[in-house]
Amino acid sequence: MPTINKAHIKRNSEDKSFKTTSNEHASSSTNNEILNEVIKHQYALKSFARTIENYEDLIELDTKQYNLDSLFAMDIGGSLCKIIFFECKSENFENTELKELFKSLKNNIFSTEDYGFSGIRDRYKSIKTKTGCIHFILFETQRVKNAVELLFQNDIIKNIKQISCTGGGSYKFEEYFREHYNIEIKKYDEFKSLLTGLNALLKYSPNESYHYNIDKTINDFDKPIPDVYDNSKSIFPYLLVNVGSGVSVLHVKDENNFERVSGSGIGGATFSGLVNALTNINSFDEALQASRKGNSANVNMLVGDIYGGEYQSFNLPANMVASFFGKFSKNDSLDKASDADICNALLVMITNNVGQVAYLNAMRYNLTKIYFSGNFLRSNVVAMKALANAIHFWSHGEIQAHFLKHEGYFGALGTFFLNNLSQYNNI
Amino acid sequence: MPTINKAHIKRNSEDKSFKTTSNEHASSSTNNEILNEVIKHQYALKSFARTIENYEDLIELDTKQYNLDSLFAMDIGGSLCKIIFFECKSENFENTELKELFKSLKNNIFSTEDYGFSGIRDRYKSIKTKTGCIHFILFETQRVKNAVELLFQNDIIKNIKQISCTGGGSYKFEEYFREHYNIEIKKYDEFKSLLTGLNALLKYSPNESYHYNIDKTINDFDKPIPDVYDNSKSIFPYLLVNVGSGVSVLHVKDENNFERVSGSGIGGATFSGLVNALTNINSFDEALQASRKGNSANVNMLVGDIYGGEYQSFNLPANMVASFFGKFSKNDSLDKASDADICNALLVMITNNVGQVAYLNAMRYNLTKIYFSGNFLRSNVVAMKALANAIHFWSHGEIQAHFLKHEGYFGALGTFFLNNLSQYNNI
Repeated sequence: MPTINKAHIKRNSEDKSFKTTSNEHASSSTNNEILNEVIKHQYALKSFARTIENYEDLIELDTKQYNLDSLFAMDIGGSLCKIIFFECKSENFENTELKELFKSLKNNIFSTEDYGFSGIRDRYKSIKTKTGCIHFILFETQRVKNAVELLFQNDIIKNIKQISCTGGGSYKFEEYFREHYNIEIKKYDEFKSLLTGLNALLKYSPNESYHYNIDKTINDFDKPIPDVYDNSKSIFPYLLVNVGSGVSVLHVKDENNFERVSGSGIGGATFSGLVNALTNINSFDEALQASRKGNSANVNMLVGDIYGGEYQSFNLPANMVASFFGKFSKNDSLDKASDADICNALLVMITNNVGQVAYLNAMRYNLTKIYFSGNFLRSNVVAMKALANAIHFWSHGEIQAHFLKHEGYFGALGTFFLNNLSQYNNI
Repeated sequence: MPTINKAHIKRNSEDKSFKTTSNEHASSSTNNEILNEVIKHQYALKSFARTIENYEDLIELDTKQYNLDSLFAMDIGGSLCKIIFFECKSENFENTELKELFKSLKNNIFSTEDYGFSGIRDRYKSIKTKTGCIHFILFETQRVKNAVELLFQNDIIKNIKQISCTGGGSYKFEEYFREHYNIEIKKYDEFKSLLTGLNALLKYSPNESYHYNIDKTINDFDKPIPDVYDNSKSIFPYLLVNVGSGVSVLHVKDENNFERVSGSGIGGATFSGLVNALTNINSFDEALQASRKGNSANVNMLVGDIYGGEYQSFNLPANMVASFFGKFSKNDSLDKASDADICNALLVMITNNVGQVAYLNAMRYNLTKIYFSGNFLRSNVVAMKALANAIHFWSHGEIQAHFLKHEGYFGALGTFFLNNLSQYNNI
């Protein structure tokens, strides 16, 4: 992300940014540990199988009828634009001109993993299929126009007539695509796409979902553990909690039957927005990293701040948060808190609240399985472990939190499937 | 509250404070309307009966055994210290010295309604009993020492040996009271006190609780409507949602049987803390007033911002919040938003979340009655109406939200009752 020129800042945080503060739990060695943990997490996910099994059931793309249109699908959300690119075999193109354009397209896409303008390709998330490979690309929604011009340069854009698309942006940008590129947006419903993508990967891609071991005495607590499915048992029903810019809670009864039962406006964009307003940190990843080193006791009012210790009669421990940002009513706390402290408080506040809404809805519909999707959880090991622990604790182990390797990509993937696979044509 | 010297501010908000912005829905005439509404609300509550009926069942204080100690009770919370003062008849004191001190005490207390140092006396909340009058006083917890020295000046303090007290401060300030004033703190459990105070007023004080009419076609929509109780029916069970610095949710099964079933760290002190961090506004009341004139569409990411309109398939309207503070990821929005816009966004975010946690817990325990208490709702007509509407909407009218005239005073009041009334001595 570009560095933004910040005008004024209420908290005098220049000398308290998470890199330089002395008032913190972390040092540069902790910096490395944190980076290592994220890398370890990605490595663990990478080691999960990345091939769709039983793909003959799923992928019917190998019909030599390719055009460039059908290789793409997009999910344009409030903050992020998720793009699917299907890399088929170039011999599938019978038309020489298209074959050349396809090569040029691949050059554009595979020349880098970092497209500038906030764009990245999630290489370790790619999925091999019998006939090619599904790739996952991410841009900020405010950069979606840059994304199009970057990926579709060299006359490619002239050969794209239609893109299948879901998310609010499929409506919001419809006119723009038509006017500027003569491209029609073929719209797919957001939740339908989300569930199509998710259910397909849960069914066909081994180790898409994972959980964390709650027993802290086990060394492998930090490692994501792939879920093992008993194929004789249905994966339904489950609760899906999608944490993107906002939060949507879906009660998924079976393959074709779901309901949006709840939601929350306290989501990923709340985190990014308040990080931007309260700190000098300019990106989501930087904020996550900072949050690892912050001490939110400088920001939050704890039970111990009110009681001077725990609240014994009701087992509320001294370090439990009574009120997020409660200390900020006093100006000396505003000055004392570092950017890292604030990131930590925000991350825990939003994660806690998502967990609570998830748990209460799971209880309400008597569900023992919660899947968490959406880009708020992207590389967000702290939030995932916190969710896993909270759900386990509140439900006395009755309800389990599951996480997903393709976090925020299910909408785009589902749109791709809906657009290309005959099995979905009658739905 | 004193004006605080704010060092720097990230948003360049000097020319955008809620008083001067041109980018807002409100004008000075709106200012008056808002003030009028708050006054009208207080007037409506004032017109409810302020006498405890059937007090012979309740108040057994008239025994000429008074000492100054028993006239007080305190609830010292994370943000606010609530003080009960029982004004008995002075002839009840047989001891002349005590009688003089009591006069002097009354002089201190009744000389004003505004004690400086953030202290106020809530005159319109006073309750007459057969033997005197219960008065309600509020200080910021950080000013609790000033409160003691102000109320107990002129040798009064030397005659106070013990004060009954609840809330975290009864632990936190215990040592301070002992060392500085030679006063012992007699501790009462916070939730037990809260429920004792609430249940007593629900039982004996008519019109303590009220609700709002949801049918917007009726002119009196804005008026609080006193609840009418059928004395042959029990008031139990109910859900109590206490919104102080944080939020506690109690499932109250009967007079002696309750459970803290849930809670949230997103509460009143989150509001005050984030108002202080993000705006130039220095008090809770000023923030509430500002929020009435703010347009949170400058702050929040709405469904319409993502979709360009409503999300039809799932009936999510364009003006629905997708993500609170979602627009603040972009710096131009940071600059555009006024203090009033931010106050409005914060108020709605916290109120919505409280409502959701309340509703989901009411569903979980199959309860049709939710009482909301705590000082976050003090004069907070916007929040109360929002809660009433949301609970009605989500539950299709099955669950009703009730509000309470003595908002945040039940803990202090319950402590006063527990300390003085024999009927509670065996509990």
